[in-house]
Amino acid sequence: MESLTKASLRVCPFVKSHSTAAMKKLAKNSSLVNEAAMCPIMGPAIEAKRSYTQASKFVSAQATDSIKVTKLNHDATVKSNNNINLSSNEIATDYNGFFENELNKKRIDNSYRFFNNINRLAKEFPKAHLQNEEDKVMVWCSNDYLGMGKNQEVFNQMIKTMETYGVGAGGTRNIAGHNRHAINLESEIAALHKKEGALVFSSCFVANDAILSLFGKQFKDLVIFSDELNHASMIQGIKNSRAKKHIFKHNDLNHLESQLAMYPKSTPKIIAFESVYSMCGSVAPIEKMCDLAEKYGALTFLDEVHAVGMYGPHGAGVAEHLDFKAHLNSGISSPNYKTVMDRVDMITGTLGKSFGVVGGYLAADKNLIDWIRSFAPGFIFTTSLPPAVMSGLSTSIRIVRKNIEDRVNQQKNVKYVKQQFKEIGIPVIPNPSHIVPLLVGNAADAKKASDALLNKYKIYVQAINFPTVSTGEERLRITPSPHHDKEICDQLIESVDQLWNELNLKRVNDWENIGGHCGVGSVSQNPLENLWTEEFLQLTNKDLNPNVLNPVIEQLEVSSGIKI
Amino acid sequence: MESLTKASLRVCPFVKSHSTAAMKKLAKNSSLVNEAAMCPIMGPAIEAKRSYTQASKFVSAQATDSIKVTKLNHDATVKSNNNINLSSNEIATDYNGFFENELNKKRIDNSYRFFNNINRLAKEFPKAHLQNEEDKVMVWCSNDYLGMGKNQEVFNQMIKTMETYGVGAGGTRNIAGHNRHAINLESEIAALHKKEGALVFSSCFVANDAILSLFGKQFKDLVIFSDELNHASMIQGIKNSRAKKHIFKHNDLNHLESQLAMYPKSTPKIIAFESVYSMCGSVAPIEKMCDLAEKYGALTFLDEVHAVGMYGPHGAGVAEHLDFKAHLNSGISSPNYKTVMDRVDMITGTLGKSFGVVGGYLAADKNLIDWIRSFAPGFIFTTSLPPAVMSGLSTSIRIVRKNIEDRVNQQKNVKYVKQQFKEIGIPVIPNPSHIVPLLVGNAADAKKASDALLNKYKIYVQAINFPTVSTGEERLRITPSPHHDKEICDQLIESVDQLWNELNLKRVNDWENIGGHCGVGSVSQNPLENLWTEEFLQLTNKDLNPNVLNPVIEQLEVSSGIKI
Repeated sequence: MESLTKASLRVCPFVKSHSTAAMKKLAKNSSLVNEAAMCPIMGPAIEAKRSYTQASKFVSAQATDSIKVTKLNHDATVKSNNNINLSSNEIATDYNGFFENELNKKRIDNSYRFFNNINRLAKEFPKAHLQNEEDKVMVWCSNDYLGMGKNQEVFNQMIKTMETYGVGAGGTRNIAGHNRHAINLESEIAALHKKEGALVFSSCFVANDAILSLFGKQFKDLVIFSDELNHASMIQGIKNSRAKKHIFKHNDLNHLESQLAMYPKSTPKIIAFESVYSMCGSVAPIEKMCDLAEKYGALTFLDEVHAVGMYGPHGAGVAEHLDFKAHLNSGISSPNYKTVMDRVDMITGTLGKSFGVVGGYLAADKNLIDWIRSFAPGFIFTTSLPPAVMSGLSTSIRIVRKNIEDRVNQQKNVKYVKQQFKEIGIPVIPNPSHIVPLLVGNAADAKKASDALLNKYKIYVQAINFPTVSTGEERLRITPSPHHDKEICDQLIESVDQLWNELNLKRVNDWENIGGHCGVGSVSQNPLENLWTEEFLQLTNKDLNPNVLNPVIEQLEVSSGIKI
Repeated sequence: MESLTKASLRVCPFVKSHSTAAMKKLAKNSSLVNEAAMCPIMGPAIEAKRSYTQASKFVSAQATDSIKVTKLNHDATVKSNNNINLSSNEIATDYNGFFENELNKKRIDNSYRFFNNINRLAKEFPKAHLQNEEDKVMVWCSNDYLGMGKNQEVFNQMIKTMETYGVGAGGTRNIAGHNRHAINLESEIAALHKKEGALVFSSCFVANDAILSLFGKQFKDLVIFSDELNHASMIQGIKNSRAKKHIFKHNDLNHLESQLAMYPKSTPKIIAFESVYSMCGSVAPIEKMCDLAEKYGALTFLDEVHAVGMYGPHGAGVAEHLDFKAHLNSGISSPNYKTVMDRVDMITGTLGKSFGVVGGYLAADKNLIDWIRSFAPGFIFTTSLPPAVMSGLSTSIRIVRKNIEDRVNQQKNVKYVKQQFKEIGIPVIPNPSHIVPLLVGNAADAKKASDALLNKYKIYVQAINFPTVSTGEERLRITPSPHHDKEICDQLIESVDQLWNELNLKRVNDWENIGGHCGVGSVSQNPLENLWTEEFLQLTNKDLNPNVLNPVIEQLEVSSGIKI
């Protein structure tokens, strides 16, 4: 510092005219920098440095030192005059330091994710082994909701296809990757949802992202109305679309309508929502959403990811479920009137949960499908799913459509588990679907509970923490399948009961005493009617219209662009 | 119109004070609207209507009529005063009309895509059948570059895994979808690229998009430098990142440096580029890119999608190829000095082309991997690839790594095809890689050529048109594999020769006569040296260090977040 001051003396009239004591005083109370900002040489240098420093969010300690030196280095400044080049004195962004810092923040706030090594065993469903093959646990949180991942017919179909057509598609749909398996699968999906066409994507994350972002890019002045609890894939698609957006309160029709009413009917709009919200199990008022969409000229975009396979007589989702009896008697074609499913413009779904393999899709009218097919980069520029995956999925959908008993048995297990938890005061967040969320209420306890279940009770239920759910709403999310029988259910219930005691976690009455939370222990809480009513739970496969038992594939030409 | 004018007479002082003739004259030359814009009642109504109309890009004829009526409907306007609500008169956006219109535009400019039904046959590679199983064609454009999609060992491994672990993962990596297959595959990929860790995605499209967009969102003031020919997935990731970006001319180091030099070294930067550009076969100067990255403090992001499996002694890509001899003698670990592959910060690759199945990945340092793992929604919120896909891919990578002969044989076939085409004047766009792009030069001819090859010559080569390549640069893109033997090559060459005559397509000398195009027929064109030199083409599997023949998986802990 001393030597710099001396060096500065040679060139700086300001330094020359001030005593050393005055300079030191100025430096001490930081006024020196304010004075320097007015200097014709230092002023621009400080300003340039300020913006440079802002530009680099993460500058190492060394870089900061070099800035300090540069600030008083009048010699260098004078030499380069107003055209200041500071880069030679600087070092690059410390990228690795940035990563470490961000990861540490996650560790501190308990949102850092530890992946458990879970190897689900097809022949011992719902069991899995951990790293060690002898170390087995009961899986209670998988999204292989119906156990189709272990289905022998799907397995056989996949092997058959692999034998003939190999293990990969070898190209995008446009270049060598379009085949009979893709055509058949898209026909199956279209038939499931009784739509004109369907389009298969790498995943439903990709589908939601690709579709919503394309709409925003192509429809000038599109406005998207999005439920506040929508999945990350929809949020990403909406953000990437750059469309104007409104977030409405979860399932709140009044709030949504107040937003819709702000625009003339002719403004293009999308209402984007889910049928079953996977972390709390709540269900959207789909029919009323369609009413609003029609009234205000919006398209409806419905994500049925956590509903396909499980709702409706054929497992087409909640939209089908809402006209249960009409669809029950109607196999391939729609009933004679416009059903809720007909009224939904876009239905997206997954091929990786109830249907057991991997992938995602959109079902809609043929022009909409062809438009997405023709314009969405996330569909166009990616390798097709392997032929065996697609043909296995056609088989899976066909099986699921005609198997109402799996849906009934799943719901019976869900009902049993919820009822048993209720009796012992375990806090289940109330909902009308198959999701059984146990409220814990903080991240550390949720993690502790999950670890203890795994290690002590040999039960795997992943803790759900922020950002998947809000802070304070941390939970264990349990997903019974048709194959979690009474014995397995009782083991879960007993273990959770013991665990709640051991960790001293809040029961329903504890939540009641503090006014309730997430619908648990709230006095105002009305009991929600299950989507699967007592009447529906009596159904068997024989009650389905025999048309649907005939696995004829409708060879729909999804669009004129697809040669069958 | 007459009755509206009469109605207006009752309330409008302007209409009252003008003669009918003067009004008609005003209406005829459109001045009436200009006059009306100044009216305290009509002015806001017209303005509101104007913005409403703009808001709806696609308004039906009926809606337009209703606007015309509204414009002169003074009665209604007076009643509702300044608070004009026009929505009741409007109809919704004609979404279907919009889709049809956009699709028609594509049909008109020949960019509408027709998918061919191509069913690649594992036991008759490179043959496929069309819709009819008897109707067989030779596939010459697949990206199953090495034929791993038909590999028996991969097939066996997949079946074995499916038998034990089922056909699907059943969840995201965080919830029940993380398993030994994911751990092993990521270890294999990390070992292939000699990096600390790797992360598997649904596809490399997802990987590129998720990684680049995350960087832009998390690094304040990040600047991305992107090659103008980068793949759609990178373009999408860069757009979604919202980072400041500079597009540099294809492989142009001077242009890139001029852009890099605009920022201080401390500004966070990414240089995003590919090794082999799939539509023209050009190859990036990776080493010099790394030099620039170091000089200017940038991270390098290298997409090796069209190179992994095919370049480098172990098929790790062009970055490995650039230190060929050093890597040839070094199996798992890196040589004793920093190789080009070490210097590249992020390598993305595909599991759906040379490795034959489906999926994508990133290989990088462990903190970077852990950061992407912890923050990228496209990784976090999606179902894992099926266990069988992942374990099949581990086997595939292990086979490809130790099989230099497949790489050599592919390049020999490429060399033969290019040489034969050269001799008969078929215009191959020159490049040092395995891509054989035949210049056609317009969309209609490219489609015609592709259709004729398929229907008449039983050869499938997809036409590549805009937007995948620029208008005027349309081509047929041919990709020889190690299994396209001399007989198959000769059939292709003869067919293309005949086709060029039949369709009267330009040969090299025709392009020469008009000054050359895309490097074809340009007098200034220097012959490019192939990446696989004559010396390398002599290598056999015996020349590889035996370490690599030992299929030991390095059980790398990709990050502390992953329990093995």
